[in-house]
Amino acid sequence: MDLQLQNLVNALTILPGVGPKSAQRMAFFLLRRPVLEIDAFAKTLVTTRHTVRTCEDCFHVAFSDKCSICVTPNRDGRMLCVVAEPKDVFALERMGEFKGLYHVLGGLVSPIDGINPEMLRIPELLKRLAEGHFQEVVLAISPTIEGEATTLYLTKLLTRSGLKLTRFAYGLPAGADLDYTDALTLHRAFTGRSNLE
Amino acid sequence: MDLQLQNLVNALTILPGVGPKSAQRMAFFLLRRPVLEIDAFAKTLVTTRHTVRTCEDCFHVAFSDKCSICVTPNRDGRMLCVVAEPKDVFALERMGEFKGLYHVLGGLVSPIDGINPEMLRIPELLKRLAEGHFQEVVLAISPTIEGEATTLYLTKLLTRSGLKLTRFAYGLPAGADLDYTDALTLHRAFTGRSNLE
Repeated sequence: MDLQLQNLVNALTILPGVGPKSAQRMAFFLLRRPVLEIDAFAKTLVTTRHTVRTCEDCFHVAFSDKCSICVTPNRDGRMLCVVAEPKDVFALERMGEFKGLYHVLGGLVSPIDGINPEMLRIPELLKRLAEGHFQEVVLAISPTIEGEATTLYLTKLLTRSGLKLTRFAYGLPAGADLDYTDALTLHRAFTGRSNLE
Repeated sequence: MDLQLQNLVNALTILPGVGPKSAQRMAFFLLRRPVLEIDAFAKTLVTTRHTVRTCEDCFHVAFSDKCSICVTPNRDGRMLCVVAEPKDVFALERMGEFKGLYHVLGGLVSPIDGINPEMLRIPELLKRLAEGHFQEVVLAISPTIEGEATTLYLTKLLTRSGLKLTRFAYGLPAGADLDYTDALTLHRAFTGRSNLE
């Protein structure tokens, strides 16, 4: 394979979920697109990478000192939603229900991967809670092993803070087939059952 | 989502096999890589796209008038291997067995997709065969419906050319489980069986 083409294929292989085969497919695809489109694509990538930052308040993705959510004037400053990663903020914003502010931890507690609580943005969370006017902290953390460990750690840490502390509900996901749902999820859905009237 | 980030996600969605979810994952990944790496990636993409061409002899991917295979002096000019796409040339070159030249058709006959033989590089093939010193034409075309239609078309076209005309063997792929092999492949493997001595 020509060196130039090989360079492009190698560059594409760094992308998550892209092996040598898909990288080659992508390279051929890109080499067939109009030159102007490829120039624009490269420019978007470079510009976005050069301007991306971390919000100085919530640590979400930002393109100035603060992220677009923290600078929105009508967000509810009494509710703080704690999430692991910026992608979780986007997922919750797509839901559209939550009008408070966020705090991005930057990961989850995972001793097996060497991620201890002090490596997450927990001191910054405590500082915000001490300085802000928050009344409720809602933990929106995936119920995985690492997520549960993080939730437990934060619960212990914040339980005497005087703030209302909540977490997202366990239960059946929309469209789930009861027959294919694992026993733990069924157990939690049963325990958390609600009245129908 | 911020407009800049959304632009990057949208740009990534054009890639084959990349939906909105993987595009977002790729965007977050790219935004975390070092700026220098992203600059180099964008430069590779743009440079490769600007310099890529089609070989004027065989229509393979090239970065000057002729491709790297056509300019190699010790290739066997008596054998011509006909393939559908440049990726097939790369696959055969990885095999390393074939030392002749290639001819890239640029697709396969597929009436359902509106691709007729005259849309492929068949006139160019006939011209090369008339002008060159080829003795054998080997068709290395996938045994799909479109591939078989193309092979049949070329067989009819070249059968009285006086050239030796061959095609790649049908049979069991390496590592195949007989039990999981379809009846047509088994039939072809049986019909094409070879002596063991």
